[in-house]
Amino acid sequence: MIDRNAPVGVFDSGVGGLTVAREIMRQLPDERIIYFGDTARVPYGSKSRDTILRYSRQIIRFLRTKEVKAIVIACNTATALTLDTVAAESDIPIIGVINAGARTAVESTRNGRIGVIGTEATIGSGIYTEVMKKMKPGIQVFGKSCPLFCPLVEEGWLHDPVTDEVASRYLSVLKEKYIDTLVLGCTHYPLLRSTMRRLMGEDVTLVNPAYETAIELRGLLAENGLSRDPFAPFAGEKHQFFVSDLAEKFTDFASSILPEDVKETKKINIEEY
Amino acid sequence: MIDRNAPVGVFDSGVGGLTVAREIMRQLPDERIIYFGDTARVPYGSKSRDTILRYSRQIIRFLRTKEVKAIVIACNTATALTLDTVAAESDIPIIGVINAGARTAVESTRNGRIGVIGTEATIGSGIYTEVMKKMKPGIQVFGKSCPLFCPLVEEGWLHDPVTDEVASRYLSVLKEKYIDTLVLGCTHYPLLRSTMRRLMGEDVTLVNPAYETAIELRGLLAENGLSRDPFAPFAGEKHQFFVSDLAEKFTDFASSILPEDVKETKKINIEEY
Repeated sequence: MIDRNAPVGVFDSGVGGLTVAREIMRQLPDERIIYFGDTARVPYGSKSRDTILRYSRQIIRFLRTKEVKAIVIACNTATALTLDTVAAESDIPIIGVINAGARTAVESTRNGRIGVIGTEATIGSGIYTEVMKKMKPGIQVFGKSCPLFCPLVEEGWLHDPVTDEVASRYLSVLKEKYIDTLVLGCTHYPLLRSTMRRLMGEDVTLVNPAYETAIELRGLLAENGLSRDPFAPFAGEKHQFFVSDLAEKFTDFASSILPEDVKETKKINIEEY
Repeated sequence: MIDRNAPVGVFDSGVGGLTVAREIMRQLPDERIIYFGDTARVPYGSKSRDTILRYSRQIIRFLRTKEVKAIVIACNTATALTLDTVAAESDIPIIGVINAGARTAVESTRNGRIGVIGTEATIGSGIYTEVMKKMKPGIQVFGKSCPLFCPLVEEGWLHDPVTDEVASRYLSVLKEKYIDTLVLGCTHYPLLRSTMRRLMGEDVTLVNPAYETAIELRGLLAENGLSRDPFAPFAGEKHQFFVSDLAEKFTDFASSILPEDVKETKKINIEEY
């Protein structure tokens, strides 16, 4: 028996997954969130499956100590490399950010040509291609890794000629493929949305998996009778934030992204889980 | 009793420390190196002292299993945050990359105005300023963190207009201070040396701590009777390379930087140490 009033666990390699937490807060305002950002071991995007699987399992064990009713892997890399395995091991629902984004992309393409951008690990895994081709076999998928986007976002250069030039270079290979749909396959990328919109033009649909994942979560909770009773009482803060390193910096970033201020972030030793 | 024919341990958060290993190979060609790159937990530059201290201690325990005679912390961040502590705990000599670079900088400045560039953690620690002012109290030190340099180097954009623009922006605040000496306070940065040379002009001395550290190591080994007998026999490869993740990619990068090819890199689970 899972408690429908328990919180939802959300985790990411760092701050990027806050774009997913933001969508969940907007679209499921009654739900409570336990967020974990693995800031001591960020980034995941250049690491191997073995390593990311060990990290994901540790984080899931930590979130379970908070008695979460469901878990959202708010990280494309961790979803790409570990979702199948950890979901199969779990007795509570675990979803990732890839499925919902992939479904929206295959539903919105008109010419069957879809671009995906993400970290080296996500693009290297070929997961988006695999998932989307299963949903709609005839389509063509073009992946492009963009390793400088995350550090540019974390430097705060969101509207900047350097970022424009980097984006222009990364995206030009996708423009040449005449894609009509682009999946922002890393949770940092929605923060560069206006740059991408300008470079890709109005005719290319930009798919934000964070948004689609919040919708998927709402459906999943509703179907399983797990939506939170909005009048159920709770103690303490509505949402709780945990990180593996440097809690203060995280709090500033979170407050700048989320609809409500983050009052406190707790640092934990994730390697103990 | 320390065995003078034992290898030297060298470690870094990832590939950057290979610029230090390279200088040791060039200047101490008889020495053997055990290199460890913490590629599963890279980068260190944005993490806290507690975290980096835990990592450094694990790595030192690992290197001790290889019976090294001395250890070089080939990472400015780990040196800045942990050298004092781990050196005091150790019965073999441990040196970092900061002291030698700082000494060269204070000896070479003519106008007493020195710039230091590095990661957020290194610059935030103020360690270079502290060390250099102790060596020569009258000088002025200007620090500037350059968080995009490491990802640009790892992307391979060494001679690139984007890197030029980023460097120009980061370095302009130091140019305005009329520095005559610039310390490259991160082991990745020597790979951007030509860009910095062009931007800073011929009159600014660029100090590469990797080079100076190899000289310091040579002196340290000689003074302590620990220089390797060039005719001492050994089994296996002369140098050994270990990483915490993705051994193949590391091997390619290492082979492109080091004077000799890296035949094999072993992946270990550093969290077990």
